[in-house]
Amino acid sequence: MRTDLCERLGTEFPLFAFSHCRDVVAAVTNAGGFGVLGAVAYSPERLDAELSWIDEQVGGRPYGVDVLVPGRLDASALDRRAHLLDHVPDRHRDFVTHLMSKYGVRAPARPLTPVADEFGRRMTATGASGLIDVALKHPIGLIASALGPPPPEMVSAARQAGVTVAALAGTVEHARRQVTAGVDLIVAQGTEAGGHTGEISTMVLVPQVVDAVAPVPVLAAGGIASGRQMAAAMALGAQGVWCGSVWLTTEEAETAPAVKRKLLAASSLDTVRSTSRTGKPARQLKSAWTEEWDSGQESPGALGMPLQMLVAEGAMARIGAAAERGEPGALELVNYYVGQVVGQLDQVKPARQVVYDIISEYADAVERLARLSE
Amino acid sequence: MRTDLCERLGTEFPLFAFSHCRDVVAAVTNAGGFGVLGAVAYSPERLDAELSWIDEQVGGRPYGVDVLVPGRLDASALDRRAHLLDHVPDRHRDFVTHLMSKYGVRAPARPLTPVADEFGRRMTATGASGLIDVALKHPIGLIASALGPPPPEMVSAARQAGVTVAALAGTVEHARRQVTAGVDLIVAQGTEAGGHTGEISTMVLVPQVVDAVAPVPVLAAGGIASGRQMAAAMALGAQGVWCGSVWLTTEEAETAPAVKRKLLAASSLDTVRSTSRTGKPARQLKSAWTEEWDSGQESPGALGMPLQMLVAEGAMARIGAAAERGEPGALELVNYYVGQVVGQLDQVKPARQVVYDIISEYADAVERLARLSE
Repeated sequence: MRTDLCERLGTEFPLFAFSHCRDVVAAVTNAGGFGVLGAVAYSPERLDAELSWIDEQVGGRPYGVDVLVPGRLDASALDRRAHLLDHVPDRHRDFVTHLMSKYGVRAPARPLTPVADEFGRRMTATGASGLIDVALKHPIGLIASALGPPPPEMVSAARQAGVTVAALAGTVEHARRQVTAGVDLIVAQGTEAGGHTGEISTMVLVPQVVDAVAPVPVLAAGGIASGRQMAAAMALGAQGVWCGSVWLTTEEAETAPAVKRKLLAASSLDTVRSTSRTGKPARQLKSAWTEEWDSGQESPGALGMPLQMLVAEGAMARIGAAAERGEPGALELVNYYVGQVVGQLDQVKPARQVVYDIISEYADAVERLARLSE
Repeated sequence: MRTDLCERLGTEFPLFAFSHCRDVVAAVTNAGGFGVLGAVAYSPERLDAELSWIDEQVGGRPYGVDVLVPGRLDASALDRRAHLLDHVPDRHRDFVTHLMSKYGVRAPARPLTPVADEFGRRMTATGASGLIDVALKHPIGLIASALGPPPPEMVSAARQAGVTVAALAGTVEHARRQVTAGVDLIVAQGTEAGGHTGEISTMVLVPQVVDAVAPVPVLAAGGIASGRQMAAAMALGAQGVWCGSVWLTTEEAETAPAVKRKLLAASSLDTVRSTSRTGKPARQLKSAWTEEWDSGQESPGALGMPLQMLVAEGAMARIGAAAERGEPGALELVNYYVGQVVGQLDQVKPARQVVYDIISEYADAVERLARLSE
């Protein structure tokens, strides 16, 4: 199967795998798809090491990197740490302490400082453009911006390196803005997707974005974890698909075992778009954490982004660790970003097998459609 | 194009058109699709007249009827009118009065009684099974239940008449329950659909329902108003599609002019799943009505079904009439049930033309998919 985009990026099959796990990225690329490493959690040094590992594994086959960069790179953000912390109201700190106590998770003495440090680092020129510089020194084929239009520095650096720039969009307006910012490839992401997501479904969004940004190519994201769903996305006019959730239950995935078990057991009704982790609506597994924040009697309501991230991420790291120790309260609270396709994920498979299964079911779906029209 | 379902129902193209307008039903059937008349608003006598008119128009081509029946036909419901009215709290009556005054719509002196009468009629054996009896006396090919599993009386009467029974489902569990109740054809409806709808998107829901109820055939609903979207639905494993919103802006549609103008101007972000009209989440155009009920400071919150229907429908009838007179407050309040595809609806076309456009774009999409795999 060859789309123009496959030719351009040198991939056999236009199946893009977003993952924070280098093993998934390499496995998908080696199986004929296109792995994309989510780099947000890494320091530049660590990213360099991860990409060198991938380079060794994939032997010149194409892969990419996804970065979370602010629209403008701001060197002063690190200095804003104390300022940010000052803006977290006491009742939000107290609510986290209350939740940790109610569910029996040991609360840290100073929960917010390391998270604020991490956050500040990511938002600086050395954090964000440092990651971009490192990524572009490797033989990547694609660099993606997960949050808003990429800054001009990123677009021009990628152009000079001959690297395709992709960006996510949840509305037609977002997509148009991305193209104006110089993006080469739009990922139109429906509301059923995991993580930060809008309100419009993939079925409705994709054809509108395809028509709005033509001839810029569009990948479909949200609700795609099988060959039938990939065929549906291609029928809508996409040139390929961008999948995230389906890799979380692969053998290679970095997903914590307790979370993986929750994902395997969940139905498609068990996700929620909640502001409780980042301050913006992000689809994730429903858990005591989302229930307490979203509709608990004592909830102060989520703060905006980035303050809610400061409040949530330190607590979630501790909750995750306690869940891995099997603590029942932590197991109730723990969750992860995942799309509605979680209801389809009921066994652990190697990432390579997931690719082959999607390719095979895709071929069957296209053949069935062709037969119906004979 | 022929699916097994086309053979069974004698239709050329598995495009099902749900509409409250007999003209749309006849036009779609005559264009090679399958019109389905929503009968909930009709008395048995009126339904008989509408179906006789359709019979004359379609010359033996296949069409169907959609009824809203309670799971059990209850002859005592008419007597419950007074009882129901007693359960509407004063603050809900007062809030409607307040809204009508705030937006300058003349409030009726006794707003609830006629609505309660109408509601009681629909819920009785003479109301619901009266409609079914009338429908089955006409040469219909399909009878659909829009709300929960159809009662056994409906299933057995339809079977005796050789009429296929369809029913809507928003989850895999609903679909299984429908099949257990004797339903022959499942309409798997995604969250992007207009009217009462669940949380799971069409892209995610349809393959799950197809696998769960096989070999029972499945229609896809929600997010489908073009040939590409129909091709996507068929790729997901559906045997056909069930469309509602796309007919609301056709020439023939009964849609009130002021509402039609709002639909044509709306984007896919302008709908909301709101309990403010029926007490259950139903997707509709965002308007001052939904905003005031869902997040207005003075809102008492929607009641459950059917009480919220009693509260809302009398008011909405008056609001609609005032909107047609061009009253600005009423134009802010007025809305209608519609899916996210409303963002694609930007011109008024004959229903026949909509069918032809969908068929033509469908063929192009399938051909494009086949070419990509060559």
